Amino acid sequence: MSVRAIVLAAGKGTRMRSDRSKVVFPVAGRPIIWWVAAAVMDAGVDEVIVVVGHGGEDVEAALPDGVMTVVQDQQLGTAHAATTALAAMGDTSDDTVLVIPGDSPLITADTLRNLLAEHADGDARCTLLTAVAPDPTGYGRVIRVGDRVRGIVEEDDADEAQREIQEVAVSTYVFEGAGLVETLADIGNDNEQGEYYLPDAIAAMASEGGVAAVAGADPQEVQGVNTHEQLAAADAAMRRRINAEWMEAGVWMQDPASVYVDASVRLTAGVRLYSGTHLEGDTSVGSDSEIGPNTVVRDSQIGSGCKVWFSVVRGAEIADGVEIGPYASLRPGTLMADSTKVGTFVEIKATSLGKGSKVPHLSYIGDASIGEGSNIGAGTITCNYDGFKKHRTVIGDRVFIGSDTMLVAPVEIGDDAYTGAGSVITKDVAEGALAVERSSQKELPGYAERRARLAESEGE
Amino acid sequence: MSVRAIVLAAGKGTRMRSDRSKVVFPVAGRPIIWWVAAAVMDAGVDEVIVVVGHGGEDVEAALPDGVMTVVQDQQLGTAHAATTALAAMGDTSDDTVLVIPGDSPLITADTLRNLLAEHADGDARCTLLTAVAPDPTGYGRVIRVGDRVRGIVEEDDADEAQREIQEVAVSTYVFEGAGLVETLADIGNDNEQGEYYLPDAIAAMASEGGVAAVAGADPQEVQGVNTHEQLAAADAAMRRRINAEWMEAGVWMQDPASVYVDASVRLTAGVRLYSGTHLEGDTSVGSDSEIGPNTVVRDSQIGSGCKVWFSVVRGAEIADGVEIGPYASLRPGTLMADSTKVGTFVEIKATSLGKGSKVPHLSYIGDASIGEGSNIGAGTITCNYDGFKKHRTVIGDRVFIGSDTMLVAPVEIGDDAYTGAGSVITKDVAEGALAVERSSQKELPGYAERRARLAESEGE
Amino acid sequence: MSVRAIVLAAGKGTRMRSDRSKVVFPVAGRPIIWWVAAAVMDAGVDEVIVVVGHGGEDVEAALPDGVMTVVQDQQLGTAHAATTALAAMGDTSDDTVLVIPGDSPLITADTLRNLLAEHADGDARCTLLTAVAPDPTGYGRVIRVGDRVRGIVEEDDADEAQREIQEVAVSTYVFEGAGLVETLADIGNDNEQGEYYLPDAIAAMASEGGVAAVAGADPQEVQGVNTHEQLAAADAAMRRRINAEWMEAGVWMQDPASVYVDASVRLTAGVRLYSGTHLEGDTSVGSDSEIGPNTVVRDSQIGSGCKVWFSVVRGAEIADGVEIGPYASLRPGTLMADSTKVGTFVEIKATSLGKGSKVPHLSYIGDASIGEGSNIGAGTITCNYDGFKKHRTVIGDRVFIGSDTMLVAPVEIGDDAYTGAGSVITKDVAEGALAVERSSQKELPGYAERRARLAESEGE
Repeated sequence: MSVRAIVLAAGKGTRMRSDRSKVVFPVAGRPIIWWVAAAVMDAGVDEVIVVVGHGGEDVEAALPDGVMTVVQDQQLGTAHAATTALAAMGDTSDDTVLVIPGDSPLITADTLRNLLAEHADGDARCTLLTAVAPDPTGYGRVIRVGDRVRGIVEEDDADEAQREIQEVAVSTYVFEGAGLVETLADIGNDNEQGEYYLPDAIAAMASEGGVAAVAGADPQEVQGVNTHEQLAAADAAMRRRINAEWMEAGVWMQDPASVYVDASVRLTAGVRLYSGTHLEGDTSVGSDSEIGPNTVVRDSQIGSGCKVWFSVVRGAEIADGVEIGPYASLRPGTLMADSTKVGTFVEIKATSLGKGSKVPHLSYIGDASIGEGSNIGAGTITCNYDGFKKHRTVIGDRVFIGSDTMLVAPVEIGDDAYTGAGSVITKDVAEGALAVERSSQKELPGYAERRARLAESEGE
Repeated sequence: MSVRAIVLAAGKGTRMRSDRSKVVFPVAGRPIIWWVAAAVMDAGVDEVIVVVGHGGEDVEAALPDGVMTVVQDQQLGTAHAATTALAAMGDTSDDTVLVIPGDSPLITADTLRNLLAEHADGDARCTLLTAVAPDPTGYGRVIRVGDRVRGIVEEDDADEAQREIQEVAVSTYVFEGAGLVETLADIGNDNEQGEYYLPDAIAAMASEGGVAAVAGADPQEVQGVNTHEQLAAADAAMRRRINAEWMEAGVWMQDPASVYVDASVRLTAGVRLYSGTHLEGDTSVGSDSEIGPNTVVRDSQIGSGCKVWFSVVRGAEIADGVEIGPYASLRPGTLMADSTKVGTFVEIKATSLGKGSKVPHLSYIGDASIGEGSNIGAGTITCNYDGFKKHRTVIGDRVFIGSDTMLVAPVEIGDDAYTGAGSVITKDVAEGALAVERSSQKELPGYAERRARLAESEGE
Repeated sequence: MSVRAIVLAAGKGTRMRSDRSKVVFPVAGRPIIWWVAAAVMDAGVDEVIVVVGHGGEDVEAALPDGVMTVVQDQQLGTAHAATTALAAMGDTSDDTVLVIPGDSPLITADTLRNLLAEHADGDARCTLLTAVAPDPTGYGRVIRVGDRVRGIVEEDDADEAQREIQEVAVSTYVFEGAGLVETLADIGNDNEQGEYYLPDAIAAMASEGGVAAVAGADPQEVQGVNTHEQLAAADAAMRRRINAEWMEAGVWMQDPASVYVDASVRLTAGVRLYSGTHLEGDTSVGSDSEIGPNTVVRDSQIGSGCKVWFSVVRGAEIADGVEIGPYASLRPGTLMADSTKVGTFVEIKATSLGKGSKVPHLSYIGDASIGEGSNIGAGTITCNYDGFKKHRTVIGDRVFIGSDTMLVAPVEIGDDAYTGAGSVITKDVAEGALAVERSSQKELPGYAERRARLAESEGE
């Protein structure tokens, strides 16, 4: 006897006005369907199968590992979708079957675990998950007799007394596998759309007294995403949930409403996040580091005691005590050792900085390795691209690169070497040497006066 | 018989602490009075006249086309303002006259249309717009007898039972033109301010049973703006309204609360807007383009499949598949063809980029035209200003500008040409040629050691 | 007879997961304890003493001037803390003693002033501050008999009727000094923690009919900060309070929810603040200046009619009519006279700009003085650091620095002088002269063709 789950995700969601399935839109950096499948798995379900529509590759790609899919080629309704999944599952007669919509990213494993436990404790053929909604308008009301559900009445069919009922159905059910296939086979499609609906199966079971209900869910938790407005609301709610967890773990946030932390991010007590901070993908931040305001960090590991502000950091490994910004762009392959600094209007790509090295201003450093304790002057550029290939620049320890130095790669600057300001360095520089490429300064006296006369004669 | 509207906008709004009229402050990129006038026109009114105060040029300039103004030189109250407008309108005895305050930017055409329709269907001399306020404190309560209004009781004059009334007057009225001028002439100014008040005209008509009311308005919709706090609230509400419309049309927003889209902007299904995005003025964005975070786009047309982030874009024409940022500034006259790229720390002004051309890093390109497939090295600057005039730079197709090239305009670089890194290019470069301005690299060995000795002897 | 206050701040606040005391965390740029002490002082108290825990130096450092501290070495409860403070105060038998927790930054002087006045007007030995909480769950309920408090019942001890009481105690009390020390000495520590609790003293006094209560506080005002989530909520509430005051004073805010103004900042009517603006520390902004979006201004004075956007400004003095940004970084020691401009991708440090001078693009100017009416070309760098020392650059009036000029300090450029683009200037330039460091431009025709052949032969 095992617990198996069917997640219904075949609908497109036309109000999203997109060719993609609505369940692949992101909430806190992960697809809607990922959240649902993860909650289901976390609730202790043995097998999860997601029913996708025609061309459901985008949904498949969005799932966590270990989740199967089955294609419902024609959109013949939720009961048909469940039947399709059951056919793919094989014999479920000894099993418990959870059926849940794939568009409610806020559903929690706790809620599902509780639903499954209540079902297991009872003797109903089906146990509904319900929510108590302050405003139930539009939802199907749950009609109870004692502890059994007599039926679900849709808004349009409800009388005045029924409309007062606040307990509503949320399209999430647990069934005994035995007989489920048969019940589904018995229901008809005698409706306007000509589709087979799961609530008809519930109605059939309810008429025999076989349906119980658990009023467990927070209405927000079971809110499906059908529109971009609902998607944004779900994202905000998930953000509040994630941020609350990190704050409880000791993370300071200047304004949690404008701090965007993906579910995949790992933080540490003592981290400080300013407003407009986006932490995305496979990112971690060590204690006493301060990020933001107005900073994106994606797929990067940041150590302790760092300050990163007004910057964009992607695919970087940052050690401890590092300063980045304001206005730095770090691209993949950036490695910054302890106590390094990348300052203002500096872009770094595929480059390692050894301990204590600094690139304070207005530089582009790509495809380079820089040793320890080196200082890269303002306006330095690694000319790494010759129009055909990228080449590497190697800079040693304690090097002083003068301002506006062009390092025409491939080129190597030895330890303790210097370059003069404004030099184009095309040849390797020996240890401890000074390399300069420069003419002598000439002066034309009285130039301003001549220009002024010229301008006058030209009528400027 | 036509419908004519009087918009009252003569008050300064002292709590704004500004020399400007409060009705010219912006809501979603348009003046408050613009919104009111536009809603009135959209409701099917034939003529709109706005009553402005002394020095009301700022209000005039803020109005949509087709709206007239009349000046109320002395601030003698709302009835006097209405009388001033009626005098300017000529004979209104066969007309319907809508009177509405000019400081409620959230009022909708639907609400006004409904008010006008209800008035037309009835036989009242005046029909009030009212709102049902959860907390009516401070507002004039509407006293009804049957379907007629017996009067409006101000907070201070209300007894306890009247204070419980939640239906409040919102200073918006429809009158039968016939007799309106006379009624207004009859009311006095026997009050502390010595002003003539419109509600006194309502009271006169109500005492004769001539006033009806339509409880149509959302309280927020009719909220006047008297303070900066109310202005910010109105702006936020308008932002929610605009964003909800775009989301319904298929636009994804990471955090609608921090997405600022002017009313004049045109978007497309599939557009993605990250937090901190400001779209202003005459701006449009094509499908599958992604803007933000932290980006301003003003008066610019952006095609499909573009990515613009951490950037400021003004007066630019951007084709399809274009990448901008992070940290780019595009100024007016920027034209970017398909598949072009302007990268990090790059400023562009009055410059066209041909298909596939790229300016990836740390450049200032102004007053230039760049052909197709050209690559502009990091640190390139068009020296377009000689202290007197701006000059143009012309770069051909498939050109490779080396890093740190100074292009001293006027100058022309032929197709397929190259420039060496660090060169100052003052003369035209022929097709396919390499132009270099550079000395030879010299090396002083043992420089580090000598400096160290020198520093020591200087006691550093 | 004077009024003396004891602020209890010995607890660490373990849920902050920090080594620092929770009361030193910032709210609107000032420590929590600062706000409490300031409100107490502002309420007209003669002496304030803060009880800090072991190692409370961080709390001491966070206090306003004129506030004393006493150390409670062992955490033996609030009554023990009060006793410790009373011992340090000497004879208080003729005084009124206010006792208040140090973790409620939103408490106002008005509330405390009212509490003290009510106490002075009555004859109670103790007057409690209470709040009426919509949801009192978890708080101690105030049991009144007539105008006296019979006791405070904790949640766990409350019967059903008592749980309905919405008036709750908020740990803030005024005592008659006479007998207070004795009462505190009488209470025991017969509880799980073995600590001495102030509410036990209240209970003792209440049993003798000596306790009154003032239901004066807004529940939010007295909310203690125990978690990062509560800290963020307090910060948001303080931000709303500060922003509301500035808006009432005539400051326009695009989106007050994302405008961060420290309590120490001074603004002027007519200032406009865009979203994502952070004004910090000792900062002032003059009328008609516009700041943001996405800008930090810290410890800087900004005059009138300025525009500062997408920039970071620290320790700068900015006169009138100045433009900064987008993407500028101003560091301490920046002085900008009237009508100066620092543009895009420009960093300024310890530099003065004379009237009308401009640094429009891509420059680093440090340790320099620039006269009036000078124009600094794009790509200019002051090479102020030679690896050992910083040196100064002096630029005169009406100077035209060509693009990409390296100014190797110490160096001086005379009035009306010019430098050629791409020059490294190592020697002083005379008034009106043109200084150039440049080779002649050479051209290799047919280079593109040769490269293509080469690439082909290399198999690229």
